[in-house]
Amino acid sequence: MERFFFPRTATGASSLVPAPPWYYSGDLLTVEYRTDPARVAELLPPPLEPAPDDPGAVALIWADWQSSSAGGEELLDPVRAQYKEAFVVVRCAFGGRTYSRCVYIWVDKDFAIARGLHQGYPKKLGSIHQTRPHPYGRAPRIGPGARFGATLAAADRRLAQAVVTLREESASGGFVNAHPMAHHRVLPSIEKGRRDTVNELISSGAAEFEGGPAWRGDAELELFPAPTEELARLTVDEMIGAYYRQVAVVWDGGTVLAPTPP
Amino acid sequence: MERFFFPRTATGASSLVPAPPWYYSGDLLTVEYRTDPARVAELLPPPLEPAPDDPGAVALIWADWQSSSAGGEELLDPVRAQYKEAFVVVRCAFGGRTYSRCVYIWVDKDFAIARGLHQGYPKKLGSIHQTRPHPYGRAPRIGPGARFGATLAAADRRLAQAVVTLREESASGGFVNAHPMAHHRVLPSIEKGRRDTVNELISSGAAEFEGGPAWRGDAELELFPAPTEELARLTVDEMIGAYYRQVAVVWDGGTVLAPTPP
Amino acid sequence: MERFFFPRTATGASSLVPAPPWYYSGDLLTVEYRTDPARVAELLPPPLEPAPDDPGAVALIWADWQSSSAGGEELLDPVRAQYKEAFVVVRCAFGGRTYSRCVYIWVDKDFAIARGLHQGYPKKLGSIHQTRPHPYGRAPRIGPGARFGATLAAADRRLAQAVVTLREESASGGFVNAHPMAHHRVLPSIEKGRRDTVNELISSGAAEFEGGPAWRGDAELELFPAPTEELARLTVDEMIGAYYRQVAVVWDGGTVLAPTPP
Amino acid sequence: MERFFFPRTATGASSLVPAPPWYYSGDLLTVEYRTDPARVAELLPPPLEPAPDDPGAVALIWADWQSSSAGGEELLDPVRAQYKEAFVVVRCAFGGRTYSRCVYIWVDKDFAIARGLHQGYPKKLGSIHQTRPHPYGRAPRIGPGARFGATLAAADRRLAQAVVTLREESASGGFVNAHPMAHHRVLPSIEKGRRDTVNELISSGAAEFEGGPAWRGDAELELFPAPTEELARLTVDEMIGAYYRQVAVVWDGGTVLAPTPP
Repeated sequence: MERFFFPRTATGASSLVPAPPWYYSGDLLTVEYRTDPARVAELLPPPLEPAPDDPGAVALIWADWQSSSAGGEELLDPVRAQYKEAFVVVRCAFGGRTYSRCVYIWVDKDFAIARGLHQGYPKKLGSIHQTRPHPYGRAPRIGPGARFGATLAAADRRLAQAVVTLREESASGGFVNAHPMAHHRVLPSIEKGRRDTVNELISSGAAEFEGGPAWRGDAELELFPAPTEELARLTVDEMIGAYYRQVAVVWDGGTVLAPTPP
Repeated sequence: MERFFFPRTATGASSLVPAPPWYYSGDLLTVEYRTDPARVAELLPPPLEPAPDDPGAVALIWADWQSSSAGGEELLDPVRAQYKEAFVVVRCAFGGRTYSRCVYIWVDKDFAIARGLHQGYPKKLGSIHQTRPHPYGRAPRIGPGARFGATLAAADRRLAQAVVTLREESASGGFVNAHPMAHHRVLPSIEKGRRDTVNELISSGAAEFEGGPAWRGDAELELFPAPTEELARLTVDEMIGAYYRQVAVVWDGGTVLAPTPP
Repeated sequence: MERFFFPRTATGASSLVPAPPWYYSGDLLTVEYRTDPARVAELLPPPLEPAPDDPGAVALIWADWQSSSAGGEELLDPVRAQYKEAFVVVRCAFGGRTYSRCVYIWVDKDFAIARGLHQGYPKKLGSIHQTRPHPYGRAPRIGPGARFGATLAAADRRLAQAVVTLREESASGGFVNAHPMAHHRVLPSIEKGRRDTVNELISSGAAEFEGGPAWRGDAELELFPAPTEELARLTVDEMIGAYYRQVAVVWDGGTVLAPTPP
Repeated sequence: MERFFFPRTATGASSLVPAPPWYYSGDLLTVEYRTDPARVAELLPPPLEPAPDDPGAVALIWADWQSSSAGGEELLDPVRAQYKEAFVVVRCAFGGRTYSRCVYIWVDKDFAIARGLHQGYPKKLGSIHQTRPHPYGRAPRIGPGARFGATLAAADRRLAQAVVTLREESASGGFVNAHPMAHHRVLPSIEKGRRDTVNELISSGAAEFEGGPAWRGDAELELFPAPTEELARLTVDEMIGAYYRQVAVVWDGGTVLAPTPP
């Protein structure tokens, strides 16, 4: 077993996450809206620039995952496979290309935090819930009129809540999170007053993707302030739309776009 | 709004659960096995008697639910709708009929505890997980060869874990939990040394039921001891089988079989 | 071992709580204020009546406990001993006496819920935090100028938060929670449309009490609304004061004031 | 506000942790024992070497903390200040000096994970409990005969439990965790097959320290296996002793001992 993540031991068995590839099956609920482009721009450190078109577009995405390593044993000990997340994606430009970029994200398991550290997702812990589709009873079937609720809380405060009503199948599941990700991986220096030990711009995306039909619908979305969160600063100025889709993804590494400055 | 459960206020809005009917959509993973019939019998207070046939049969059932009241608003604030449970069912006889009886149960939300108090389920809090079926990726589709893991912990100790491999469709989802429930609702007297304030035998079952095909399969099951739990006393002497089924249930009250003795 | 609470087994070892006496060591942070007396009165079912003096007085109390049974073994497996709670107490009159009455309460462990069922506290689950005193560093020593924060959340929403600044020693730790408790123990009938199976008025209080000096101070208190909570309906119209005290309590049963009507 | 940790925003308010200094008040329960020195050595990557004396010594430490940034506002919103941890420390040698080194650690809050990332502690999430001293009732006073329990679980499995009985005041609180820490900060490359982006050896310790008297006592300690943990591999071959101490610590950065190889 490769000694991938901490704690690194002789056998590698303790690693908080095994080495990629990582396999995900899950349900995505996406709400897209426009905010003040200046509020997006201030979250883009150089050399990133605002996306040339629709620079105020934001996607708030809830995901209900089961994930595993290549061996797949986590799926049979599901406390090690299942997690939920809510994350905020904007778009940016670098080197003439448009990228997606996760600016905020909350998850509910430590292995998900570890994967985020590797991938450059700025993960915090949160309490995340979304309505699950079900073939029987009052829980919704995926289809016209189906309603899904989604909520996010952290540190005992609700940060966001949405209700999405599906209307029709859609050619896409949204455009804001549709590009390769451009993320900074950052680790401050252990020595005070020194430059970051890591401050590199990396890119990654799905190595494999499989998905059912995407559904489009209408959304109500509320954001709430909190002392240590700035999600509510990305005010909902204009709703774009909402999407629901069941997907599977394989993630297997990325590339450095710009290394840590010396 | 009816003032059903505590805390009872002028409006009823604070009630930990609203009045029935209660609506459930969920997935059931059932492992049936035989233990020493004496271990089942010791869990049956008079006037209950052991079931006439197969008196050592036990079902350990995991369920992954979304539930709601008649209004259904919980489904859109899913922290109030979603919960998981693991419970142990045996059979017993009373008045010439066979009943199912839940002898142990763990859930992960307070509204589920409250419903259990009403229905006579002896609910504790636990941490419960079961693999979810999913149409894409490595999570299982419901069908031959699909594998589902299920685990139960309480007070930071693992109490049970199972792996079920589906083989074929089945006419039933098991026989141990297939009867109306015979439960005691018990509340000790606030005055020391007095008889129970409530110690009544009640029966209830589903008011409505809807379900997909049941699947039968093979199970591995392990039970672990803990200082305040006796699940492991119901040793797995002979495996009967395992089942998986997606269902919807409506619960809407029950009947008193034997009132509290005066 | 007595078969006290559910699940009742042959040995009694599974009981969610052992039989009283129950022993508590903990820290109490109390905020007292006045609300509209009509909002208190509407929480008092007959035969209770408003307290003759200061009928709008409310105490919101945070407590950080370690509790155990007579054997005390929980203290060495502290996940079974430690819990936190926040609760709202008002006063009422019955039979010419004044009683305290808990109208809302949130706890974070199941054994605490079970004890509440027995004692007539209408317990829900919540997330409760209060600053702990500590002899070193920036955490407060108990004394003039010490500041304690306290928060309450349930279902991923913050319901209350307070900051208390101690000023001086005090002869008492507050007057609202200073009487014997008058609680209703309530269990609806399993049969729809029938009267409650239990709806009795009981009283109880501490069998033994030990405490350090009480401290008095100033409080800021905020209450927040939530769909299934009515705490915020008890608006903070006038602050009375705040108290901090470390105590030990033994609870060992109570008495029936008015039995369930036939 | 400095933009210290992710997510880095224009204001810095979202940073999962603020920049150091960080302030801690808490209680430490330490159990020291000897294991096979080879099991310690295999956890020491080059250039670290086993400590010259007593190379099999291990400390398993529980800590119950309140922590804050320079502003201290977390102490009044205690869900952001309080956390618990259990960690395993061994000793090692580098450049002619002896260092302490944390090889495993579990915490219960995300801000504690973030600080660990900075400091090189390999933090996972866990459920950690330890008996708290209290001046009244059955909870222990710190003194001869006082008994403290401590437990650790992760992923719904108990990993360790200890009971410590205090005997007498002690000149020290243990020797294994008494040196500056030598930690590796590690981040694998986002590009598969490349060397680690960060793999640096750093050292840090308390910038300020304040503490009450240390107490020495006897311990019982049990370790349990789990699929993704190797704590139990550090078998308890010989008990050294146990310690209890209340302390305050300030942490304010460290130094690089050996940078990431190019």
